[in-house]
Amino acid sequence: VVSEHLAKHPTDARAYSTKRNSVAVISDGSAVLGLGNIGPYGALPVLEGKALIFKELAGIDAWPIVLDTQDPDEIVRTIINIAPGFGGINLEDIKAPGCFAIEEQLIKALNIPVMHDDQHGTAIVVLAALINAMKVVGKPLKKAKVVIAGAGAAAIAVSKLLLAEGLSDVVLLDRAGVIHTKRKDLNAAKKEIAKITNPRRLQGSLEDALIGADVFIGLSGPGVMRASDVSLMSEKPVVFALSNPTPEILPEEALEGGAYVVATGRSDFPNQVNNALVFPGVFRGALDKGVREITEVSKLRAAHALAGLVLNPTARRIIPDVTDKKVVPAIARAIR
Amino acid sequence: VVSEHLAKHPTDARAYSTKRNSVAVISDGSAVLGLGNIGPYGALPVLEGKALIFKELAGIDAWPIVLDTQDPDEIVRTIINIAPGFGGINLEDIKAPGCFAIEEQLIKALNIPVMHDDQHGTAIVVLAALINAMKVVGKPLKKAKVVIAGAGAAAIAVSKLLLAEGLSDVVLLDRAGVIHTKRKDLNAAKKEIAKITNPRRLQGSLEDALIGADVFIGLSGPGVMRASDVSLMSEKPVVFALSNPTPEILPEEALEGGAYVVATGRSDFPNQVNNALVFPGVFRGALDKGVREITEVSKLRAAHALAGLVLNPTARRIIPDVTDKKVVPAIARAIR
Repeated sequence: VVSEHLAKHPTDARAYSTKRNSVAVISDGSAVLGLGNIGPYGALPVLEGKALIFKELAGIDAWPIVLDTQDPDEIVRTIINIAPGFGGINLEDIKAPGCFAIEEQLIKALNIPVMHDDQHGTAIVVLAALINAMKVVGKPLKKAKVVIAGAGAAAIAVSKLLLAEGLSDVVLLDRAGVIHTKRKDLNAAKKEIAKITNPRRLQGSLEDALIGADVFIGLSGPGVMRASDVSLMSEKPVVFALSNPTPEILPEEALEGGAYVVATGRSDFPNQVNNALVFPGVFRGALDKGVREITEVSKLRAAHALAGLVLNPTARRIIPDVTDKKVVPAIARAIR
Repeated sequence: VVSEHLAKHPTDARAYSTKRNSVAVISDGSAVLGLGNIGPYGALPVLEGKALIFKELAGIDAWPIVLDTQDPDEIVRTIINIAPGFGGINLEDIKAPGCFAIEEQLIKALNIPVMHDDQHGTAIVVLAALINAMKVVGKPLKKAKVVIAGAGAAAIAVSKLLLAEGLSDVVLLDRAGVIHTKRKDLNAAKKEIAKITNPRRLQGSLEDALIGADVFIGLSGPGVMRASDVSLMSEKPVVFALSNPTPEILPEEALEGGAYVVATGRSDFPNQVNNALVFPGVFRGALDKGVREITEVSKLRAAHALAGLVLNPTARRIIPDVTDKKVVPAIARAIR
């Protein structure tokens, strides 16, 4: 009887089936955090961990699905084909630039929320941490000069969300240096980001970019920053060294170089900037409200909601802990 | 660390990840029992029920995946693409003749067990029931004249397994009547089955085929058989009316027509011939032993193991109950 009803009224599947509370966590294993392109079998344990976090923190039934293809078109087709039974799609550890087109095409094709967590989960949690870090150093967020090491999926998404928040001075760097519109070696995603960032038209190395910067955000790889680099920055430097497991600079070195607020992706240092603060609540909210797309407005609201949970931010506490029970409901409420 | 290991040694994924104990239950919703081609949303509740049975009876983590395509090639590609994380694939409610090629291609392409349950689960449970029914009526199984109403996925798989068991006189019928090699209107699957069945070269209607038959197996639709048809059969007729929810003939009518053993697919009559007696144990055994393919030998062994659980078969008890705790281990042991 339920089957006949749903055959006639597919949109009711959300109300009368497991679709209501299920998310597919999907990866091709092409960009696994700290491990790179290790393929589907290597990605499987990572997705299993993520599925557990979905269940533990948000009560969501998440199923890990690893793909035997790294072709973007084939990935899109496959996910569209398996989508009807899921209430949401969490893309994971898919390498740039393919990940951008994959997400964009899926958002267009499907009427359920699709989020590449490496991009938007990261962007939301970084913005939340930055909101509070700027309070701690007593500088206005929107005026901050931000330097981002990295120009992959996470770095580009973080840049875009910072711009959406109202920041204007954001500079990205890849291995070849500062990203600017004169460079001839940029892929489509980097070309696009070059146009909307780097308003002072900087060129050169990380050192060049860091002179007078208020914020460093590392979304690149181990050890790209030294204590002497931190000392090039403006007063009370904010340093987010988010490469995992080995940050761009270790907290003790950053502090030695004069950093005032330091965050990493690791749980053994203060200020863990962790996507697990974000994705459970984002999907909890989207599933509960039948949200079809995680909009820019929802992402900004989520970042502010997360930042707002730390009532009196300090240099060692700019972001809530993953075990804080208020996090998932606060983020879920922010999703519209 | 696990991720790096599995990236290098994919075959260890079975030992160190959820792959070990997980089965994808996949349907395109094109042939849902009793409902027909109702599409993915209609199939979802059916697959959810099946996933629950996997967990309840065999402790297997099964995930329902409904497909937004009914194109056989696209189905094969999609399933190959999502296969790495699963320990087995249970195909479900996919219409004939597409289901045959889909299963065949997946078995060739994947190194995990793939079983279209509508075919092989049904074939195993029907053979098990028939082994005991023939004991009850005191006739040798291999000599039985069997008439099968239906020539879809289940009917063709049942026929092949009966032939593998050593029976030789099996006749199938579709809507147009007895399937024989002279017919010009047969699809490839029916042509193939025509060549290996119907040794007496029968033609005509169900009535024609039933004259002198020992066994009727209905895998077709409601009400295709009448009490007067049963009386055309040999002495002590065996009638399996397995169409669900409405059988080809109701048990009281079959008995009125002279049936000696009657089975249906329903739980409210004696002798429920239910695939749930089979698929949990088949996958339990295959997952535990790392079996890559459910062979004909395993299917025959499973049918005999299931039949063997009823020590003294009677007309009202030829098959164990689904709640019998001995069923799953017995079938699992039979899989090689």
